[in-house]
Amino acid sequence: MTSKMIMPWEDRPKGCDDVMWRYSKNPVIGRYDIPSSNSIFNSAVVPFEGGFAGVFRCDNKAVQMNIFAGFSKDGIHWEINHDPIEMLAGNTEMIESDYKYDPRVCWIEDRYWITWCNGYHGPTIGIAYTFDFKAFYQCENAFLPFNRNGVLFPEKINGKYAMLSRPSDNGHTPFGDIYISYSPDMKYWGEHRSVMKVSPFEDSAWQCTKIGAGSVPFKTEEGWLMFYHGVINTCNGFRYSMGAALLELQNPDKVLYRSKPYLLAPAAPYELVGDVPNVVFPCAALSTGNKVAVYYGAADTVVGMAFGYVDEIIDFLKNNSL
Amino acid sequence: MTSKMIMPWEDRPKGCDDVMWRYSKNPVIGRYDIPSSNSIFNSAVVPFEGGFAGVFRCDNKAVQMNIFAGFSKDGIHWEINHDPIEMLAGNTEMIESDYKYDPRVCWIEDRYWITWCNGYHGPTIGIAYTFDFKAFYQCENAFLPFNRNGVLFPEKINGKYAMLSRPSDNGHTPFGDIYISYSPDMKYWGEHRSVMKVSPFEDSAWQCTKIGAGSVPFKTEEGWLMFYHGVINTCNGFRYSMGAALLELQNPDKVLYRSKPYLLAPAAPYELVGDVPNVVFPCAALSTGNKVAVYYGAADTVVGMAFGYVDEIIDFLKNNSL
Amino acid sequence: MTSKMIMPWEDRPKGCDDVMWRYSKNPVIGRYDIPSSNSIFNSAVVPFEGGFAGVFRCDNKAVQMNIFAGFSKDGIHWEINHDPIEMLAGNTEMIESDYKYDPRVCWIEDRYWITWCNGYHGPTIGIAYTFDFKAFYQCENAFLPFNRNGVLFPEKINGKYAMLSRPSDNGHTPFGDIYISYSPDMKYWGEHRSVMKVSPFEDSAWQCTKIGAGSVPFKTEEGWLMFYHGVINTCNGFRYSMGAALLELQNPDKVLYRSKPYLLAPAAPYELVGDVPNVVFPCAALSTGNKVAVYYGAADTVVGMAFGYVDEIIDFLKNNSL
Amino acid sequence: MTSKMIMPWEDRPKGCDDVMWRYSKNPVIGRYDIPSSNSIFNSAVVPFEGGFAGVFRCDNKAVQMNIFAGFSKDGIHWEINHDPIEMLAGNTEMIESDYKYDPRVCWIEDRYWITWCNGYHGPTIGIAYTFDFKAFYQCENAFLPFNRNGVLFPEKINGKYAMLSRPSDNGHTPFGDIYISYSPDMKYWGEHRSVMKVSPFEDSAWQCTKIGAGSVPFKTEEGWLMFYHGVINTCNGFRYSMGAALLELQNPDKVLYRSKPYLLAPAAPYELVGDVPNVVFPCAALSTGNKVAVYYGAADTVVGMAFGYVDEIIDFLKNNSL
Amino acid sequence: MTSKMIMPWEDRPKGCDDVMWRYSKNPVIGRYDIPSSNSIFNSAVVPFEGGFAGVFRCDNKAVQMNIFAGFSKDGIHWEINHDPIEMLAGNTEMIESDYKYDPRVCWIEDRYWITWCNGYHGPTIGIAYTFDFKAFYQCENAFLPFNRNGVLFPEKINGKYAMLSRPSDNGHTPFGDIYISYSPDMKYWGEHRSVMKVSPFEDSAWQCTKIGAGSVPFKTEEGWLMFYHGVINTCNGFRYSMGAALLELQNPDKVLYRSKPYLLAPAAPYELVGDVPNVVFPCAALSTGNKVAVYYGAADTVVGMAFGYVDEIIDFLKNNSL
Amino acid sequence: MTSKMIMPWEDRPKGCDDVMWRYSKNPVIGRYDIPSSNSIFNSAVVPFEGGFAGVFRCDNKAVQMNIFAGFSKDGIHWEINHDPIEMLAGNTEMIESDYKYDPRVCWIEDRYWITWCNGYHGPTIGIAYTFDFKAFYQCENAFLPFNRNGVLFPEKINGKYAMLSRPSDNGHTPFGDIYISYSPDMKYWGEHRSVMKVSPFEDSAWQCTKIGAGSVPFKTEEGWLMFYHGVINTCNGFRYSMGAALLELQNPDKVLYRSKPYLLAPAAPYELVGDVPNVVFPCAALSTGNKVAVYYGAADTVVGMAFGYVDEIIDFLKNNSL
Repeated sequence: MTSKMIMPWEDRPKGCDDVMWRYSKNPVIGRYDIPSSNSIFNSAVVPFEGGFAGVFRCDNKAVQMNIFAGFSKDGIHWEINHDPIEMLAGNTEMIESDYKYDPRVCWIEDRYWITWCNGYHGPTIGIAYTFDFKAFYQCENAFLPFNRNGVLFPEKINGKYAMLSRPSDNGHTPFGDIYISYSPDMKYWGEHRSVMKVSPFEDSAWQCTKIGAGSVPFKTEEGWLMFYHGVINTCNGFRYSMGAALLELQNPDKVLYRSKPYLLAPAAPYELVGDVPNVVFPCAALSTGNKVAVYYGAADTVVGMAFGYVDEIIDFLKNNSL
Repeated sequence: MTSKMIMPWEDRPKGCDDVMWRYSKNPVIGRYDIPSSNSIFNSAVVPFEGGFAGVFRCDNKAVQMNIFAGFSKDGIHWEINHDPIEMLAGNTEMIESDYKYDPRVCWIEDRYWITWCNGYHGPTIGIAYTFDFKAFYQCENAFLPFNRNGVLFPEKINGKYAMLSRPSDNGHTPFGDIYISYSPDMKYWGEHRSVMKVSPFEDSAWQCTKIGAGSVPFKTEEGWLMFYHGVINTCNGFRYSMGAALLELQNPDKVLYRSKPYLLAPAAPYELVGDVPNVVFPCAALSTGNKVAVYYGAADTVVGMAFGYVDEIIDFLKNNSL
Repeated sequence: MTSKMIMPWEDRPKGCDDVMWRYSKNPVIGRYDIPSSNSIFNSAVVPFEGGFAGVFRCDNKAVQMNIFAGFSKDGIHWEINHDPIEMLAGNTEMIESDYKYDPRVCWIEDRYWITWCNGYHGPTIGIAYTFDFKAFYQCENAFLPFNRNGVLFPEKINGKYAMLSRPSDNGHTPFGDIYISYSPDMKYWGEHRSVMKVSPFEDSAWQCTKIGAGSVPFKTEEGWLMFYHGVINTCNGFRYSMGAALLELQNPDKVLYRSKPYLLAPAAPYELVGDVPNVVFPCAALSTGNKVAVYYGAADTVVGMAFGYVDEIIDFLKNNSL
Repeated sequence: MTSKMIMPWEDRPKGCDDVMWRYSKNPVIGRYDIPSSNSIFNSAVVPFEGGFAGVFRCDNKAVQMNIFAGFSKDGIHWEINHDPIEMLAGNTEMIESDYKYDPRVCWIEDRYWITWCNGYHGPTIGIAYTFDFKAFYQCENAFLPFNRNGVLFPEKINGKYAMLSRPSDNGHTPFGDIYISYSPDMKYWGEHRSVMKVSPFEDSAWQCTKIGAGSVPFKTEEGWLMFYHGVINTCNGFRYSMGAALLELQNPDKVLYRSKPYLLAPAAPYELVGDVPNVVFPCAALSTGNKVAVYYGAADTVVGMAFGYVDEIIDFLKNNSL
Repeated sequence: MTSKMIMPWEDRPKGCDDVMWRYSKNPVIGRYDIPSSNSIFNSAVVPFEGGFAGVFRCDNKAVQMNIFAGFSKDGIHWEINHDPIEMLAGNTEMIESDYKYDPRVCWIEDRYWITWCNGYHGPTIGIAYTFDFKAFYQCENAFLPFNRNGVLFPEKINGKYAMLSRPSDNGHTPFGDIYISYSPDMKYWGEHRSVMKVSPFEDSAWQCTKIGAGSVPFKTEEGWLMFYHGVINTCNGFRYSMGAALLELQNPDKVLYRSKPYLLAPAAPYELVGDVPNVVFPCAALSTGNKVAVYYGAADTVVGMAFGYVDEIIDFLKNNSL
Repeated sequence: MTSKMIMPWEDRPKGCDDVMWRYSKNPVIGRYDIPSSNSIFNSAVVPFEGGFAGVFRCDNKAVQMNIFAGFSKDGIHWEINHDPIEMLAGNTEMIESDYKYDPRVCWIEDRYWITWCNGYHGPTIGIAYTFDFKAFYQCENAFLPFNRNGVLFPEKINGKYAMLSRPSDNGHTPFGDIYISYSPDMKYWGEHRSVMKVSPFEDSAWQCTKIGAGSVPFKTEEGWLMFYHGVINTCNGFRYSMGAALLELQNPDKVLYRSKPYLLAPAAPYELVGDVPNVVFPCAALSTGNKVAVYYGAADTVVGMAFGYVDEIIDFLKNNSL
């Protein structure tokens, strides 16, 4: 990312000892921020033309899931299009989609790539690219169903595109681990490897039921830093929290460190209450210098932000690794 | 209903574009509004003697479910009896009931008919009538178990009583559609027809798990207008929202229009939090002229109201039909 | 039934102490006895024109479920039509059916009535009548879904038709009790009463999961004698056995005696092995004088017969009642 | 308990008719009250050296469950140790523990006994003793897995130690009753008896799914008074409420009275919202004279207090017994 | 056991390479071998007065589960009492039992001890003793529910009685491991230790779902030799097979060797077909010199026998240990 | 395949009208045909060096799943290696495998390709090639977990390898449809398309729960002919039957015809009884001229064969298509 980006940012509150902290004006995007929406959450942003662009999950009032483009000057105040993204044919004519949700956005080489959970005879990973956030070109789905949380790396690794994903099943999956796959061409995928698994209940219960990649990993000297979600199945339903992992630069299927404690878990009112209570679900991270800002869905209803310092996060991972 | 009824009403708030809007002083009935109650919700009202009468679901602090009569001058401030309704024998001596919940009230010809979920070797549809909301006469259960959400039409159709219901099973039913049945005499029922089914997940997810009739349908020039509930099964439990349907006047098993987006979904604090979070459950509607007021249970804890204009709702159904 | 009927019969084998015993040439109907069939089972027979007629469940090789008429001179050797029964409109034009299975046949006054599990937006009880087993007239479904095992009484009781049934849900129901309902006209049904429930596991485990009426009850001096099935849920699936009950003549919702031990349980090879192992499922009984012959489905694959003496069965019920 | 204890106390609010009422400054312990904690709840306190000591369940931010000692002068403001209790070997060298949660504390004769849910190849009842809340000596687990909610009596009964517990299974148990067991030596346990079972749904639905002992019973003239939790399984998860029971002094497996209505159910914001919404879970009671103060976990997140008068509670039980 | 015992025995068939082999005249006890029985299986035998005695699980035709004494001269041909064992009070007056099943018999010092699955507010381990197989004295249940497959050691270990068991839950348990517990007096039990767990699916799938002790362990120079059952959950239900384990003599919670391949799995017709298909369930072993004879329930319907040589079995365990 | 192949064959039995018929000497491979095996089933064969070679699923007596090479002169009598296939590195060094089962074999261009269900952090599709059935070279897994029943086409389609598969989940999957995927290089896969879905229950119940590709499709003038399995979930478990489909030659994601009735369903004793009762599971087909021989696993225990004429099968599909 360009160093000229003006990071959305708020300093750590006084008296706060947490590694990461919430934005005081959360949520930054409300559930009704476009006319048709029932909820706006689990959305992704990138620097774009001196400001920011993003792809947003806006469920409408029929609770149909779709993704929408949006723009912002400061990364905090957003104008989201009132109509969902219409896809043009990219590397395939087969661009069917029963629904689209949980987008991520990733700049690679010359364009922005969007990945999302695409409904094609079951949930799988949809892929599209855009140069301008106006025209979007949908490509072949990366995998067979059933898959969610497809997240690309921002550069090729050993000459190939790389994607994290969480294969699972066709319902409220009570299991799920993170795998990585490679592609020479964004069309055919292989070399599937296991990356991270759920934790034993005794060791780190917040991530004992399922885990999934969250933000596009960004490069640090020590490795790829990625925020992910972990889930515990309480007697009152799933609770989603956020952790981070540091993956080896050249072999990102190797986990160097991984947060044993969570970095953010549902505790603010907009995280505890909403369409699906007790959800913190990271989908994007902006970083410049030592600062990082994470965008996360809260309670499947709104979008919140959290901040931190990269070096502190990495230190935390090193000292608190699972 | 008599045109002399003084509708409970509040105009649409400024800046609100919603087809229906909440009463600003919701909830109108609190969980502890009678001494024994743990919660008061899913209740039904009708115009009565210049004011209003109603039948209320009040779960007591042993969480036993029963129905209580209540009265109001303005439809908003209610006096609910402290003792549950005691049933006299109507068209049968067999008036067993393990529990009573989710009442509806319907004026037909010369009396008020009450229907509710009656515990008789499983949940089924109980029926009673009253002339004065003092003496209630319990009749034969309409159906075999397992059934809930029995809602009568306010006049005979082709010479017979007509009732909507949602047959299902004996637990937290994960399926359920709306059927209609007919009776010549309120004792024997037949001519069962399918009316409305759940929606495919892709089309209208808020009503993809189960649906059930809500308010007694009322006649408009274009058809019977009825509010109903729809349910989606999230990873943190069932979420109940409200839609509306327009049924053909002479053949009410024919759905003319049906809301693809919901009209009201859990978003207010008293709907999101309570004994069962994320529930909006309509059980009654008052209408005079072009106005309609809906009474709905919120979070299985309290009663709320929402308002709208009949013509706008019908237009909305026509333009947003599933 | 006419006393002139020539009962299909085989005497109790030497050394056998059982109250009821299997026909030595079981199964009497094989799975492939008509060209299209995958299995023939759960079928019902009655005396007819000096011989016998029946309605048979023949699942075809697409495993579609349908009912077929058949004829026999001796009640043992059967000619089953190769085409399923085509229904004409009886007391309704609405004779939809997604599938038909588990028929029973009952003579009342002037005609034969067929009941079966009828697929109409879920399983419910279909009704038809015939005078000649050639033309069949389908009537209104008796109940809302979800229901199975509808069995009529062979005469009106207190001036009304009476039917036993087992309301349940839309899958492999793990619960189910027997209820009775009444109708003045075979079109509208009411006065639903609980008749028999599953047994506690400790008392009679073979009938602790679900029970359902089997054969059309026949009149004895002491009451209506009916064979029914009971189910236990083992760690390898449901096991269906056969018992009997004696119901009060004028108030058949009152159970006088009911078998605590089963009368027949899966033990013969054709009962233990087949499409659904470990199933004995009675659907009809012929009786003349003191003899009774029961027709039962075995392993959801073939039809078997068992015999007994009415007085012995009643004595057994009296001495071994639950 | 010593009569010199200065009870934590707040008088019944004006206009309140409830038998027990919440402390107005609840929660008394917040989720982040020690640096490592994600939540502090389901904890137990006793009088100690003129003030109070306690054992607290503090889940850390890896959501690992452990127990911590803490101290207070007034029973309301607490200093909880930042490190969990380290166990020394008591009557056994085998003091394994995968996790520890839901502690209770009980003074018997010469020392304080701690019981908790101990992870040893499944959840079972851990036992330890301390004289000073500094050194803790872990003993043999009382039972085989799977067990939770082990609660000791504060004196020997017929010469033996007595413990209530709730045997169940290894997940989010959907069933559970209270049993009592005896031991001559705190090492070997036997004479297991059933004490209390869940209530039928129709009679007292808040305790129809599972029940478990809460506070250490304390002696009254009329019997052992114990607060317990009951659970109902709503369509949105388990809801935990609090009741009380009076057990016979010499034969505590005999229940004299038991609350049919609950005494406290989730209604305050900190009970309705949190890591596990809708939980009130009592773990300790202080009593002197006629006053009683109950400590309870709220929403699996914080600790609250409720107060009442012993005679009123006993009267309530007598007049409202299940 | 006395060396004078005349072992029931049959040599290994020619061409058979199996470590253990079936008796050629299996089953040795048929399902109807006493008049009331539906099935006789999962039963235990011991040498007795120059011949053999046993305790047999005979489910009657109401499928009530109970245990019966029986006698044999050769261990193969059995006379089983027609009436179940009536218990006298042993070390307690509390000898309630809703049902009794799956008995084991064990000689310790001066008497025969019977253990079984006893219905007392859930399944737990019943204990009784007899001197003569005529008078039986029931003792305190060993554990709280929910437990099955309690198997005693034939001598005290370190001065205490020792029992293996499989704690689990109240249904068709899909999990279960073997634990050991100790008692100074056959009344109070403690020192519970984990002994053996299910195998990972990849390593030994026949024992990947649950395991339970089978026969009373008998002493060899190398350790306690015990036959146990293991279960795999196929898509058509549970399949029970038999393995063996060698436990350390002085510390029997230490497993020296344990069979990775099964020793006997359902393959004979009477094991593959019956009330519960695909069950081999060992409950007793006789051994003298180098020979061992195992009694096992087959298909929850009959009793079979299998033979082997102790040294070969131990060699097999050593060479094929999990 | 070479026209010189000597087909294993047996003419249709007299009196048989079935489209396909069983070999009279079934099973052709028994469960204990190699010393270590518990069962041999779901195996695949091809013509090889004038005779036949195959890859066999042999579960050993620890019920570990692995694949073994075998050879035959006549396709009926087989010599199976006693040791499982050891894989060498093919197009990857990553040849991990927790287990291997359900192999298929397919000749493409210059070598034999093996596909199977490979355990790599869940079940997925393993790929290997061999020239001689001695040295096998394992390649990259085709897909992410969770997948089974990967079946290659015997030639490239539009220049790419093509594979059918059935993505699903990690247990006894109660759902599953057939998809097709393409690869330029047997390493990276994409262009995933839906091919065939389960049938509605009413239309063809034997294939209403899940379906999966069986044999390698072979070319006919009218299209690719493939045998597949379909599953119905009975109340006693899954029942697997065999059907066939004809796929378009150039666009095999287009189904031309598909059998509505099954072609073979469990009815022979070795199909009805075994480790998993009621399973017919085709994995290979040999065809020369108009004859076809299908190899299928029976009851997850043995291997059977069935025969038919290609033209008759295709006619049957045309006349009985779903």
